[in-house]
Amino acid sequence: MVVITLLTDYGTKDSYVAEVKGAILKIAPSAVIVDVTHDVGNFEIEEGAFHLARSVFYFPEGTIHVGVVDPGVGGKRRSLIFKCRGSFLVGPDNGLLAPAAEKLGVQTVYEITNWEMLPVRVSDVFDGRDVFGPVAAHLARGVQPEVLGKRVEGYTILEQYTLKVSNGRAEAMVVHVDGFGNLVTNVTSGALTQMGVKEGDILVVEAGVRSFRLPYVRSFSAVPRGELLALVAGGDFLELSVNMGNAAERLGIKRGEGVTLSLS
Amino acid sequence: MVVITLLTDYGTKDSYVAEVKGAILKIAPSAVIVDVTHDVGNFEIEEGAFHLARSVFYFPEGTIHVGVVDPGVGGKRRSLIFKCRGSFLVGPDNGLLAPAAEKLGVQTVYEITNWEMLPVRVSDVFDGRDVFGPVAAHLARGVQPEVLGKRVEGYTILEQYTLKVSNGRAEAMVVHVDGFGNLVTNVTSGALTQMGVKEGDILVVEAGVRSFRLPYVRSFSAVPRGELLALVAGGDFLELSVNMGNAAERLGIKRGEGVTLSLS
Amino acid sequence: MVVITLLTDYGTKDSYVAEVKGAILKIAPSAVIVDVTHDVGNFEIEEGAFHLARSVFYFPEGTIHVGVVDPGVGGKRRSLIFKCRGSFLVGPDNGLLAPAAEKLGVQTVYEITNWEMLPVRVSDVFDGRDVFGPVAAHLARGVQPEVLGKRVEGYTILEQYTLKVSNGRAEAMVVHVDGFGNLVTNVTSGALTQMGVKEGDILVVEAGVRSFRLPYVRSFSAVPRGELLALVAGGDFLELSVNMGNAAERLGIKRGEGVTLSLS
Repeated sequence: MVVITLLTDYGTKDSYVAEVKGAILKIAPSAVIVDVTHDVGNFEIEEGAFHLARSVFYFPEGTIHVGVVDPGVGGKRRSLIFKCRGSFLVGPDNGLLAPAAEKLGVQTVYEITNWEMLPVRVSDVFDGRDVFGPVAAHLARGVQPEVLGKRVEGYTILEQYTLKVSNGRAEAMVVHVDGFGNLVTNVTSGALTQMGVKEGDILVVEAGVRSFRLPYVRSFSAVPRGELLALVAGGDFLELSVNMGNAAERLGIKRGEGVTLSLS
Repeated sequence: MVVITLLTDYGTKDSYVAEVKGAILKIAPSAVIVDVTHDVGNFEIEEGAFHLARSVFYFPEGTIHVGVVDPGVGGKRRSLIFKCRGSFLVGPDNGLLAPAAEKLGVQTVYEITNWEMLPVRVSDVFDGRDVFGPVAAHLARGVQPEVLGKRVEGYTILEQYTLKVSNGRAEAMVVHVDGFGNLVTNVTSGALTQMGVKEGDILVVEAGVRSFRLPYVRSFSAVPRGELLALVAGGDFLELSVNMGNAAERLGIKRGEGVTLSLS
Repeated sequence: MVVITLLTDYGTKDSYVAEVKGAILKIAPSAVIVDVTHDVGNFEIEEGAFHLARSVFYFPEGTIHVGVVDPGVGGKRRSLIFKCRGSFLVGPDNGLLAPAAEKLGVQTVYEITNWEMLPVRVSDVFDGRDVFGPVAAHLARGVQPEVLGKRVEGYTILEQYTLKVSNGRAEAMVVHVDGFGNLVTNVTSGALTQMGVKEGDILVVEAGVRSFRLPYVRSFSAVPRGELLALVAGGDFLELSVNMGNAAERLGIKRGEGVTLSLS
């Protein structure tokens, strides 16, 4: 029983995701397919990269992660397999997979080149179904990546996740707003340690000309209902939140906005 | 092959649900995971309780139902396992599981206390992934609930589902509006029998100062297209509906509103 | 391991889809259930028919496809099993299944009549859970369709997919707008061949009094970002698109609109 995860910007109104699953099950009938999300904004590579980097850690060893947010489909971008410690990632070489792959630990990278292992393509526009899904299914059956492609050096990296910390100040970014309105930043728990932040400290968050003070805590209910807080949730990223409320609405901060963090 | 169902307010835009599934599959690789819904309103315990109570009956014996609508996560509320006739329910002790558990027939209740059986927690805010999912997975593998927690008496109950029937009048409530606009009430088929309602009777529904007359029928198409009707659908609750139309819009009634029912 | 696919207009906010899955797993515990989509517009048979016809081709031989968009539930419409080459389709006789069945190749049609094989019905309004799901589960276990129903001749067909081509002009229709804003027409690759359309040709698309010129290409990136194009994507239907943009917004064309296509 090998797990294959799927992350795309296909949405769930169309049959696209189902077609990818059908293509996988044709090759690997006993694969267990798990949806990460298909509601990544159209062509929003950074958003997809965040969800992948956050979630890969929670899957069993041997899981194969397929990511498809792919504005360059049909063009010249390469199709990649990342062999990581205990897992594979499969998708376009546009930065989508790199943060997750580096979190898992990249061992070898392969460019998919063995088209004879793949279904006959009726078009050039649906690599999720025609390339990445089938490649993942072959890997799930134990086919070695060397058989599916050739070893390459280097891959595309997104600059967005680079955090600058100096003099106790972090020049950070809101990389995601979740469905509860929590503002997820690119500040890792490691960066907080580097800044000397400890539980109970007050963080000063500056967004443009505005400034907010948030206690750094371990759970939402450490503060009264409706109050601001900062915590590191499952993805190892600092989140700015409101206990039982919506921080994005309260603070008026959007995905992609820069914020500066420092100790009070 | 044990079935584990998941009901949460996590939404499907984030990777949260996938992380719960990963955590389950790490422990119970052959579990069959079924989503009930993840679109419960944030922190809307009553709405989640309704979906669980409605759906548990349709799953195979031995199914383990996980419910997570959990405003108190990280606080003092207990984490529970309900052992019911032929099934388990796992989730927070906030009323979410009780109506479903009582429908199935509660046998024993356990508080989850054996943290050594659970993954190391990176935060206190994601019990779906760090506690309830893994506990369900252990149960799916045949671990006895006594190993995961300690037996307790009593659990939190929501008052919402209490229906008052007297003198042939039911003081009822719209507990859910479904995607077709059907208004689902807390009136069970048993309550209708008690009121002496029979197929073909006309029900008078009063909502505030307004009053509507609906025939009690067995199928939507028992009335012409566009006309009002009342029927007991799958969940054993009376629904107010329009044949091929939207009753919520037509009647201007919302979830949570009180309605009075009587025979014409 | 038999695959059962589900396509409905139930949405994913309610527990309806989960109840169908529970009913299937009660009978066929090892069935692999794949969601095609549950976001078909309420009672939009044509839209559901399109998704089914598009996706059935990508599933393994032996897959059982369940489709439920069913305004006539509880009325007199028949419940059907289509036995096709290598697959079954199960659902109401209202045109929903016919395009997919004909694409796969219809062998025999059965009306479901053996109610003793099905769960006791608590209502007449939920055939997805009470009839079609269980029938699919029986088929997945190898029960022959003759046991579940009786052979019939004829079935309901939708007129929408009929394309008129004459004098090099196709009187076509936009049958679907996908989540990216691509306008999917009922023009097949066969019709394009009949019209003499070749890669690189310019197609003239007339919608009412407006007229657009689109190159017929094999991939989105064959044109610069933001430019119009026409291509045949996975479903073998011609799509009108914008590279990395939204054609529905750009052209102001909606689902159901007629368009005329000809060579420049």
